[in-house]
Amino acid sequence: MGATRTGEVMEAIRAKLASRALATGDRLPSIRQFAAAMAVAPSTVVEAYDRLAAEGLIRSRRGSGFYVTGTGLPPMGLAAAGAPRDQAVDPFWVSRQSLDADPAALKPGCGWLPAGWMPHAALRRGFRALARADDSTLADYGPTRGSLVLRRLLAGRFAGEGLDIGPDQLLLVTSGTQAIDLICRFLLRPGDTVLVDDPCYFNFQALLRAHQVRILGVAYTRSGPDLDALAAVLRAERPRLYITNSALHNPTGATPSAQTVHRLLTMAAAHDLTIVEDDIFADFEPEPSPRLAVLDGLHRVVRIGSFSKTLSASIRCGYIAARADWIEGLVDLQLATGFGGPSPVATEVIAGVLSGGSYRKHMDELRQRLTRARRDTARRLEPLGIQPWLMPRGGFYLWCQLPAGQDSTDIARAALAAEVVLAPGNVFSVSGTASSFLRFNVAQAVDPRVYEVLARVMAAAG
Amino acid sequence: MGATRTGEVMEAIRAKLASRALATGDRLPSIRQFAAAMAVAPSTVVEAYDRLAAEGLIRSRRGSGFYVTGTGLPPMGLAAAGAPRDQAVDPFWVSRQSLDADPAALKPGCGWLPAGWMPHAALRRGFRALARADDSTLADYGPTRGSLVLRRLLAGRFAGEGLDIGPDQLLLVTSGTQAIDLICRFLLRPGDTVLVDDPCYFNFQALLRAHQVRILGVAYTRSGPDLDALAAVLRAERPRLYITNSALHNPTGATPSAQTVHRLLTMAAAHDLTIVEDDIFADFEPEPSPRLAVLDGLHRVVRIGSFSKTLSASIRCGYIAARADWIEGLVDLQLATGFGGPSPVATEVIAGVLSGGSYRKHMDELRQRLTRARRDTARRLEPLGIQPWLMPRGGFYLWCQLPAGQDSTDIARAALAAEVVLAPGNVFSVSGTASSFLRFNVAQAVDPRVYEVLARVMAAAG
Repeated sequence: MGATRTGEVMEAIRAKLASRALATGDRLPSIRQFAAAMAVAPSTVVEAYDRLAAEGLIRSRRGSGFYVTGTGLPPMGLAAAGAPRDQAVDPFWVSRQSLDADPAALKPGCGWLPAGWMPHAALRRGFRALARADDSTLADYGPTRGSLVLRRLLAGRFAGEGLDIGPDQLLLVTSGTQAIDLICRFLLRPGDTVLVDDPCYFNFQALLRAHQVRILGVAYTRSGPDLDALAAVLRAERPRLYITNSALHNPTGATPSAQTVHRLLTMAAAHDLTIVEDDIFADFEPEPSPRLAVLDGLHRVVRIGSFSKTLSASIRCGYIAARADWIEGLVDLQLATGFGGPSPVATEVIAGVLSGGSYRKHMDELRQRLTRARRDTARRLEPLGIQPWLMPRGGFYLWCQLPAGQDSTDIARAALAAEVVLAPGNVFSVSGTASSFLRFNVAQAVDPRVYEVLARVMAAAG
Repeated sequence: MGATRTGEVMEAIRAKLASRALATGDRLPSIRQFAAAMAVAPSTVVEAYDRLAAEGLIRSRRGSGFYVTGTGLPPMGLAAAGAPRDQAVDPFWVSRQSLDADPAALKPGCGWLPAGWMPHAALRRGFRALARADDSTLADYGPTRGSLVLRRLLAGRFAGEGLDIGPDQLLLVTSGTQAIDLICRFLLRPGDTVLVDDPCYFNFQALLRAHQVRILGVAYTRSGPDLDALAAVLRAERPRLYITNSALHNPTGATPSAQTVHRLLTMAAAHDLTIVEDDIFADFEPEPSPRLAVLDGLHRVVRIGSFSKTLSASIRCGYIAARADWIEGLVDLQLATGFGGPSPVATEVIAGVLSGGSYRKHMDELRQRLTRARRDTARRLEPLGIQPWLMPRGGFYLWCQLPAGQDSTDIARAALAAEVVLAPGNVFSVSGTASSFLRFNVAQAVDPRVYEVLARVMAAAG
């Protein structure tokens, strides 16, 4: 047991190093302090620090404590491939902090709803039903395209939007991110050019860096991508792919206008540009906006989505809707890289919730709750001089501008020390032009401590 | 509804085309026959065939029926990247047939146990417990490395083998295949050389083709990889990686000898070769054999595994055990390409079964049952002149040689028409030198129809 506790302490320090919560030259928590925090004997912390020192990760200064050397943990693979970036601007920064945060930490920068807002009664019903399911559902691999029942349900929902496809144009996958990853592996070669919005969801950048493609940003306006900027990029470059949100843009919350959607598709056709439309927030819309996939009919638009934001991020299930021949190739690719699609257990629960009749009511309630939360959050940010760039029609994000002179990366670093995880604008911006912005998740910005910490760190910085 | 049924019929034909069950020039099922098989009106099949004909995939011959044109479904992505291969030898062939097989089909070529052999009572208990779990388990993303509880359980099991690592050297992922895929993305560049066993698990080849690396096979002997052949390859080439099974080799069932394991590690060190040891069948061993990861201590060996073969293929959960600094990089890569690790729902159920005390008893019973099944299957194959290359110490595979003059690819094609899915040797062999072998799954070779069909197709071929 002793070895395992030492390992846990070492792991905790490594996690702080990897997530940049402890940077080169920083002093580690004192032995006594960390022993109390980890609920272990001080001798365990001593052993852990000694072993880390033996690895060269930290160094002891007599009478002063332990310090991060900055050697060791050489970035391998992904990190090594890209240029060194400001540690706070790293696309992994918000992910790591949010996903590995202490339960007591506040996460107004994270990208999901609190567990208490999700339809847990329906999920529990789903698991009780699973306990009564047949052996095959509990133990067998699923079919290569994923549950036909769920694919039919999705096709039925799309038909309601005016997109008429068969289940053969759907592939179930493990998550929205994995959906885009598969599409990138299917369509892209290293060195290809890919367009994203500026700002955009930070994990698009992390993903595209893993594919070693050239990433160009297109400025995002209050009515969608800046089409003049897009036209210029299409004339000057030969991008293979454009990845964007529909419906409710992450992080701005804007909805592309009908004219923008239509003109964008025309331009895409003229330049043989494939578009990936990430529909992950679509169900938060009060009513459906014109959608790229619907207008295009899945000829050059690929629609992806998942249930992580509306049902559960714990039950991993997403989908790709595309041309049938591309779906065939994507099935093979998913087979090769993951052997089989998403868990039949997952698709069974999701299908059950979607067909059980409670989903619509759940989303109605969520939308109302979020409308109030967006208003409340904007109201509470106002005294701090923090203003939403626009008030979205739906969803849980507010893309907010700080008062002049404040840098959101500095603000976020300082807030992290107070266990508040913020999302600084530049993690979303390929061009690094969002240093005065923060993205707020209104469902995770309820606790007054969020605003107390913000006020304090802004005062200290200003 | 009509459109959806037509879509289903079209999907069924596309699936047959994609899985090579219908090849160029083949005649499609008659309208009446297929309408009966799909339980739809003949007019629905007519509409489906017409739409497929409009796409150019099939053509109508007056008075004769519909035929596959061989145009359309141009291979994209993955398939386009490699050289055209004999359709029956395609690494996807066995996967697709097995995963998408009719429930009435027999699958003695597939790579998993029947659902009825898995510990469904424990799994059901796990789902009932999940229904009572807290909201966070049901709805939140998991931590970036995956459940600490499950990682500790795994570290504890490894410690029992003599491999002493902390949970910080473990990363939970969605499956064994995804584990290897992540490692390949982390370590490899297109054009790198990777070694596999010959024969080896066919999906290793599909996966490596997706990475566009050069694949070289090393002959596999009854005591592990042919070390003289390996030495020659290491001298002549500069392979970056070697992927192999430990414990019980897929497909041969052989166990590497202690001398082979030790010498292999020495050679790997001399040539800076990283080894991925796939432990997915390890728990089927009667007692643990010397293991690469254990002798090496995870310096240049990466151990991967999953619970798909022992607990459930439906609940997707695997792991990577490696150097701590590589784990850090792999966490980032998994974040970028899948956002977060495996489903906390999945890890909760798996951890519950592993710590519930029933796992050991389940594996004891499985091992006994499989010992009998290996003997029974060998006995029933004998009159057909089919002989195991060796009798494995454990597991569910028999790697069997056909009588002289029989080609297993032809046998497998003919058997498929009779709805028996076999695994022909050449899907496992990079060098294509296993045309007289079949891999049998003894747990899926119980039905007498397997042997009847085998006898019939062998008689017709011989």
